Amino acid sequence: MDDSISRPGPSRRQLLGMIGTLAGSAAMYTAMTKLGHAQESSYRGPIQLQGDPNGATVLVLGAGLAGMTAALELRNAGYNVQILEYREKAGGRNWSLRRGDTYTELGGFTQNIQFDEGHYFNPGPWRIPYHHHAVLDYCRRLGVQLEPFIQVNHNAYLHSTKAFDGKPQRFRHIMNDFHGHVAELLSKSVQQNALNAAATQEDTEILLEALREWGALDENMRYVQSEHTSEFRGFAKDPGGGLTAVPEPSQPLAASDILKSGLWSRLANGNLYEFQMPMFQPVGGMDQIGLAFQRELQDIITFNAKVTELRQDENGVTASWIDARNGGETRTATADWCVCTIPFSVMTQIPNNLSSGMNAAISALPYAASVKFGLQMSRRFWEEDEAIFGGITYTDLPISLISYPSTGYNQGGKGVLLGGYSWGTYAYEFTAMSPEERVRRAVEFGAQIHPQYNEAFETGASVGWHRVPWTLGCYGVWTEETRAEHYRTAAEIDGRVVMAGEHISYIPAWMEGAILSALDATTRLHQRVVNG
Amino acid sequence: MDDSISRPGPSRRQLLGMIGTLAGSAAMYTAMTKLGHAQESSYRGPIQLQGDPNGATVLVLGAGLAGMTAALELRNAGYNVQILEYREKAGGRNWSLRRGDTYTELGGFTQNIQFDEGHYFNPGPWRIPYHHHAVLDYCRRLGVQLEPFIQVNHNAYLHSTKAFDGKPQRFRHIMNDFHGHVAELLSKSVQQNALNAAATQEDTEILLEALREWGALDENMRYVQSEHTSEFRGFAKDPGGGLTAVPEPSQPLAASDILKSGLWSRLANGNLYEFQMPMFQPVGGMDQIGLAFQRELQDIITFNAKVTELRQDENGVTASWIDARNGGETRTATADWCVCTIPFSVMTQIPNNLSSGMNAAISALPYAASVKFGLQMSRRFWEEDEAIFGGITYTDLPISLISYPSTGYNQGGKGVLLGGYSWGTYAYEFTAMSPEERVRRAVEFGAQIHPQYNEAFETGASVGWHRVPWTLGCYGVWTEETRAEHYRTAAEIDGRVVMAGEHISYIPAWMEGAILSALDATTRLHQRVVNG
Repeated sequence: MDDSISRPGPSRRQLLGMIGTLAGSAAMYTAMTKLGHAQESSYRGPIQLQGDPNGATVLVLGAGLAGMTAALELRNAGYNVQILEYREKAGGRNWSLRRGDTYTELGGFTQNIQFDEGHYFNPGPWRIPYHHHAVLDYCRRLGVQLEPFIQVNHNAYLHSTKAFDGKPQRFRHIMNDFHGHVAELLSKSVQQNALNAAATQEDTEILLEALREWGALDENMRYVQSEHTSEFRGFAKDPGGGLTAVPEPSQPLAASDILKSGLWSRLANGNLYEFQMPMFQPVGGMDQIGLAFQRELQDIITFNAKVTELRQDENGVTASWIDARNGGETRTATADWCVCTIPFSVMTQIPNNLSSGMNAAISALPYAASVKFGLQMSRRFWEEDEAIFGGITYTDLPISLISYPSTGYNQGGKGVLLGGYSWGTYAYEFTAMSPEERVRRAVEFGAQIHPQYNEAFETGASVGWHRVPWTLGCYGVWTEETRAEHYRTAAEIDGRVVMAGEHISYIPAWMEGAILSALDATTRLHQRVVNG
Repeated sequence: MDDSISRPGPSRRQLLGMIGTLAGSAAMYTAMTKLGHAQESSYRGPIQLQGDPNGATVLVLGAGLAGMTAALELRNAGYNVQILEYREKAGGRNWSLRRGDTYTELGGFTQNIQFDEGHYFNPGPWRIPYHHHAVLDYCRRLGVQLEPFIQVNHNAYLHSTKAFDGKPQRFRHIMNDFHGHVAELLSKSVQQNALNAAATQEDTEILLEALREWGALDENMRYVQSEHTSEFRGFAKDPGGGLTAVPEPSQPLAASDILKSGLWSRLANGNLYEFQMPMFQPVGGMDQIGLAFQRELQDIITFNAKVTELRQDENGVTASWIDARNGGETRTATADWCVCTIPFSVMTQIPNNLSSGMNAAISALPYAASVKFGLQMSRRFWEEDEAIFGGITYTDLPISLISYPSTGYNQGGKGVLLGGYSWGTYAYEFTAMSPEERVRRAVEFGAQIHPQYNEAFETGASVGWHRVPWTLGCYGVWTEETRAEHYRTAAEIDGRVVMAGEHISYIPAWMEGAILSALDATTRLHQRVVNG
């Protein structure tokens, strides 16, 4: 219960030599303190658009988060705003599928979602980092309630079909054993005076002490089976109560087995800034964010409007559109200015008279392939049988991961798993299948990790993003080269049109990128309008 | 967004030699697979007490979790059960303080709790590990709703008054920089052929690759300022949207500064089995567990009953008791058997005719000193100013830590911090003060980490466990020696009396220990009754 760990010190040896990183610390320290408590985000709270737009009109294309952010802020600043949206509802990729929803993908397959009431599956964004300040701020302003999303679960699995006989390993075993073996190896080399650059003996002794504590080493600087290492990796038999209380220590995995398994490649994931704890999700589904925006903007959104052409001249912007479901006559919407959040993947198909530079940027941006699966299970076997409450199991199977619901813990009943989140080649393969076949395969793969799938699976849904008619892919993939050549052109105001969305950001695929992009575009557009 | 990290491989060098842990893996692998998916807990679900107790009566002393677990299970098995409880309510150390509560400690100080409606402070247990299966099972059976408790927050602080000019450091900086420096040091020593035991070149090459990925090293196996290391530790300026999007990498801390700071001693904490993610708390306060038990047992609990004597003979057990508030006449309760959950610290003051062995055990168990502070703040500055949502900041100040509420995230409004959790010498010092003085000091200390305390603090409460009349300390502290000498005697049935509670477990201080102890005691008592 005491949060500190302390053990008797090791016998001190003659320790010499450490490497150069231990020198030059004064300069680094100075640089570090200058940063101090600096707010790292570029988001500085609600934007202030000063100055009167004098009744200027703005046409926003797309009612995803970027479009709705722009619309909300521009309307607040006095603009006359209207939004055209292809779908029958707002949110864009901020999307949850639940009972009663119908989704028809390119190729004509229609899925009628059958999840039980109260359950859902997020085909798009599904977690919010604590440092996505703009998303969090809009959630707060719009009354979207958040709950923790469990990214790191030490009791979830790391799984490789090529290691440990295909048996999934607990994250806590791989992580703590990797730490322990690394600490033991480094302490040995330090003790053998292997590191030949200059360092003080004091630093060296502290390093050994740090390795011993952090790596759960024993008094001989070894990582071995013991109660102490079991306090990290868990026990073979947990401590208990009364006369059946004595714990049994567990046996660490061998370093060589961990290395050969490749499972160490998953350890850094939860340490990444993007995936650090805590993460969040809206209570009730990710689409609660889009719906909250929609409530604010309901009266200025035209739904089911498929943009077929975009033209501008010195007087304004005109978008032609047709009814996205029923076709029919072409209508037009005009405005002084336009914020266009249509993905570049879709823009390639919309005739326009934007600059040649902009059209080159549009053509230069491929969209990532990705497939997600939502699988409803008749019982929460991951909680009941395996003590996995939320979090993610990673695997080298084509499904890539299984994520357990971060809500409704420990109450029994059903649950909808994120049954896979595939990328690259696997995503293209899955996308080529029918939705039924995709789900069938996801269940087959998942059953290799959780055999309970075989009795518990009830109904599923899946979204292959290249078949989503309104995005034709998951998100815009910039390379260093395409960024250097096209990004600035893509972001700058092109006549009377400015682009916004996750693709016009350095945080691709994230809602934060979409919102920050919209705020930046909106601010610049407003300056143009007010300053002439 | 892709969860994997991959970078081009380093130039291969002639790599030789690694240490012996990399050998002998086959044997370890065999041992490991035998464990397989073994359920590590000793809890096997609701106990089944077969056989008719024939109307036997049981007196349970104490309506904490141990006593109420015993009462619930024995009543279900057909026993006639009554409970005597010192306090005016059930739950014992499973306790939350909220508006309207009054608490008088030894020494006579009374605190009238002033927190705003809806806020609370848990003086006792405050978090539930995912592997405390018995607690979780009772929560499920009794309808106690759980929510995640954020134990590890990468954006919370590690603070030492003796390092970094007393400026708190973000956990993500210390952790990722420590990992990076360790990875760089070990890779250098491996490349210099420092490790002289036998290992395959294949293992060595994989080790270098693992260190490079896990430690965020560059192609030269260095941990340096870069976009890549910033993807772990965070940026000086985060990536953004539009034309203000380019991120600025942050400068890692120097290895020597981290080592000298001692802050590395906090890194292992969240890797411990006890503190791994996810952890949980009941929605609305920890006391929701005790209250849920109380709802089941209301009719058999006598409150305000202070036990003054415990006697047994061949026919039964008799407890003498008086009204805990008003004194008055001594009353007695009798039964065939007794489950006694009174802490040994209190038992030392209750005359009894238990065996001399049991009384020796009672006398041999000291109780830990510990103090906790609940501090209400007028605004959630930790969220609003510092992007810390839940989690724990650790410090070398006497308060030891600050824990931020794991509920009501991102909604603004007030919050009650756990303003300190002190142990050892500091706990004794705080306990010697009046509650007002304790809180005043906790606010002073906390303001060294969060200057916002100075404007935001509104009201506080504190519990020094050695002043709690019904426990006289926080939990029973066994040493290896006292366990060897007294534990078995303390746990065995002594005539007609069996002890239960966290002190009769190998999980001291945790609710799980209390419940498992009660289940073990109950099972043995029932066997004695049924088998004669």
